[in-house]
Amino acid sequence: MAISRADCHALDAEDPLRDLREEFSLPDGITYLLGNSLGALPRRTAAKVAHTVETEWGRDLSASWNTAGWWDLPQSTGDRLAPLIGAGPGEVLAGDSTSTNIFKVMAAALPLRPGRRVIVSELENFPTDRYVVEGVAKALGAYEIRDVGSLDEALDMALDEALDEALDGDVAAVLLSHVDYRTGALRDMDAITARVRAAGALMIWDLCHSAGAVPVDLRAADADFAIGCTYKYLNGGPGAPAYLYVAERHQDAAHNVISGWHGHAAPFAFEPYYRPADGVRRFATGSPPVLAYSALNASLDIWETVDMSVVRAKSLALTTLFIDLIDELRPDLALVTPRDPDRRGSQVSYRHADGYPVVRALADRGVVGDYREPGIMRFGFAPLYLRYVDVYDSATALAEVLDKESWRDERYQQRLTVT
Amino acid sequence: MAISRADCHALDAEDPLRDLREEFSLPDGITYLLGNSLGALPRRTAAKVAHTVETEWGRDLSASWNTAGWWDLPQSTGDRLAPLIGAGPGEVLAGDSTSTNIFKVMAAALPLRPGRRVIVSELENFPTDRYVVEGVAKALGAYEIRDVGSLDEALDMALDEALDEALDGDVAAVLLSHVDYRTGALRDMDAITARVRAAGALMIWDLCHSAGAVPVDLRAADADFAIGCTYKYLNGGPGAPAYLYVAERHQDAAHNVISGWHGHAAPFAFEPYYRPADGVRRFATGSPPVLAYSALNASLDIWETVDMSVVRAKSLALTTLFIDLIDELRPDLALVTPRDPDRRGSQVSYRHADGYPVVRALADRGVVGDYREPGIMRFGFAPLYLRYVDVYDSATALAEVLDKESWRDERYQQRLTVT
Repeated sequence: MAISRADCHALDAEDPLRDLREEFSLPDGITYLLGNSLGALPRRTAAKVAHTVETEWGRDLSASWNTAGWWDLPQSTGDRLAPLIGAGPGEVLAGDSTSTNIFKVMAAALPLRPGRRVIVSELENFPTDRYVVEGVAKALGAYEIRDVGSLDEALDMALDEALDEALDGDVAAVLLSHVDYRTGALRDMDAITARVRAAGALMIWDLCHSAGAVPVDLRAADADFAIGCTYKYLNGGPGAPAYLYVAERHQDAAHNVISGWHGHAAPFAFEPYYRPADGVRRFATGSPPVLAYSALNASLDIWETVDMSVVRAKSLALTTLFIDLIDELRPDLALVTPRDPDRRGSQVSYRHADGYPVVRALADRGVVGDYREPGIMRFGFAPLYLRYVDVYDSATALAEVLDKESWRDERYQQRLTVT
Repeated sequence: MAISRADCHALDAEDPLRDLREEFSLPDGITYLLGNSLGALPRRTAAKVAHTVETEWGRDLSASWNTAGWWDLPQSTGDRLAPLIGAGPGEVLAGDSTSTNIFKVMAAALPLRPGRRVIVSELENFPTDRYVVEGVAKALGAYEIRDVGSLDEALDMALDEALDEALDGDVAAVLLSHVDYRTGALRDMDAITARVRAAGALMIWDLCHSAGAVPVDLRAADADFAIGCTYKYLNGGPGAPAYLYVAERHQDAAHNVISGWHGHAAPFAFEPYYRPADGVRRFATGSPPVLAYSALNASLDIWETVDMSVVRAKSLALTTLFIDLIDELRPDLALVTPRDPDRRGSQVSYRHADGYPVVRALADRGVVGDYREPGIMRFGFAPLYLRYVDVYDSATALAEVLDKESWRDERYQQRLTVT
């Protein structure tokens, strides 16, 4: 082998992020390559959540809406997320699920381009994006959905050409993922945003698979809107609050269709009619799930100490190492993630007809990845808590599962509810 | 006084719910009359949430989507809420905020009455209901909002007459609160639902101020839809998941406009087009905030042991006692809550021009109520953890604050962000 396990130990010893691993509670005997799906638990989270439960809720009760800053959580948490995605203060609101934020942002964007009746979406995007676009198009009426992309295009970047074909004077908004959830392909945010805006349309980015893994600069790209989740690379916890970004220039004209009282200009005046708050706050709707924000804010304490360019450098070193090792151990395995580092997020995916049982057999050996239709095995590399030696161990484990065909065992064939 | 503090102690000793108080973590020296706003912390919640954080998330990581039942939380939690509101299994889905659920339910109801273009709403309802109706009416286009009710009508039940006037062949749906958030007036769910349905419209009930305080029987009333929160009398925690109810007869035809992947028929097939799940599950949207569901489920463990008719009997005894005491101590104070027990929820409200500083001065004496415009002081009585002696102490404290005019102190005049 071109690299040994001892070499990986040496790389870990020099890793500028090595101490961060101690910030996380990782189960013994597991190599967790699913930080791209559900991030690991920061050690400090349990105490922070317990404080929110026992002191803020239990002792201080409703006073905490003021004294613990509960009322401001959507904005204060949004402002802490902003630096991770290149947004300014007052441009990000944390709350709801990614799906609901897609609905809000799309329903806010479309009326900004009156007369244009086309939404450009990716058929091969993470399904919820496409499903929610259907819902918005139907609710708002008479919107056409124009799909671009395919699994292969997501890989070979023919997406650019498809986008050029799709963009015309009827397109109001374009929704794309910055990093593809299956292939891990990273799109050129600057170039695509410029192209979409040149066509007079609004650009909405889904950052679920890039925030916390890849430097994101929405302002530099001049993006119009964005949405994303915080439970993947950002380690906010299962179903943690998602977020939306509304560029400052749109904040007066863009409206929240789910116009609840938390987005009202004077929520405690109890006025009978809706009057939107200034700025991104108008995109708030109902009471924020405070415990979920507490967990997310514990994780953001860690993120405030991290330089994203260092995270990106380690991410690429880890994914490159994994690809190199598999190239050597199982050159027959079909890589679907771009080899070009500039076009790669923080995951590595392979296509295999029996990908599902392979992933389950691998999990039984302590290496946790996951599977996505059709035939995609995904391995995520979260630079905050993964080591080079973990990459070595998981690549050799994957090769062994394939070499020994241990995935053929009956117990790995049956699908779990959540795959 | 017609009743002494010792009499109240005697009532507490005979209270069939007296042991339940031990289930709650209540701060020392505080009489908490805001269970109608944010319910108190059940003692068992901290351990349950810690288990979810440390074991389900920290140790088992993404496997918990299957092994800890995370994926099913919206339905499993909904099924536990169902008995509290007279719903059947598979009719309730827990998730999102109340406001978002109003949006979902209203957007699902309106297309079921094609040709009818009027939504009947209450101008004096909790504002978010009215605000969200505005958002739906605008999003779906060409819907007229017809407002009924006023603060006084909510009290004197002239609402019935206003409703009769408002109901005609153009009305698609009616949204009303079962218990008014300010006056505590309880509406006749059976009679109003029958009237609305006789007019060919759909009845949507907001149960925020009745679930957990008043027996609710949606099926007996033949209601069409309902929504509610779980952080008030149900003690689910700040911003706990809300819920929606879709009567079984509507479940095939009613659609979720926020059509995310959690409501898809085959979410892990990753099909490109949206195809709704059967039943109420289709109203799920995105990833559930698992920590928030964990806290709610801890509280539901307690609710499963409780007979709602016993809760209701104690609730009425507590509110009647408070009204009787204030009648005696401060007969000048203007009661806005119905004296008729059958028309009363679980709160008692008084109107006072200086209600805001009165409530703040009272809080400084350890009795926590709240204030709502215009001039309404609210005192909620949560039967699971309040005692008769608490009612005695809070009534005498309120009378004393008024007698001594201690509320005139400068520090009580300035409004907090959240009132």
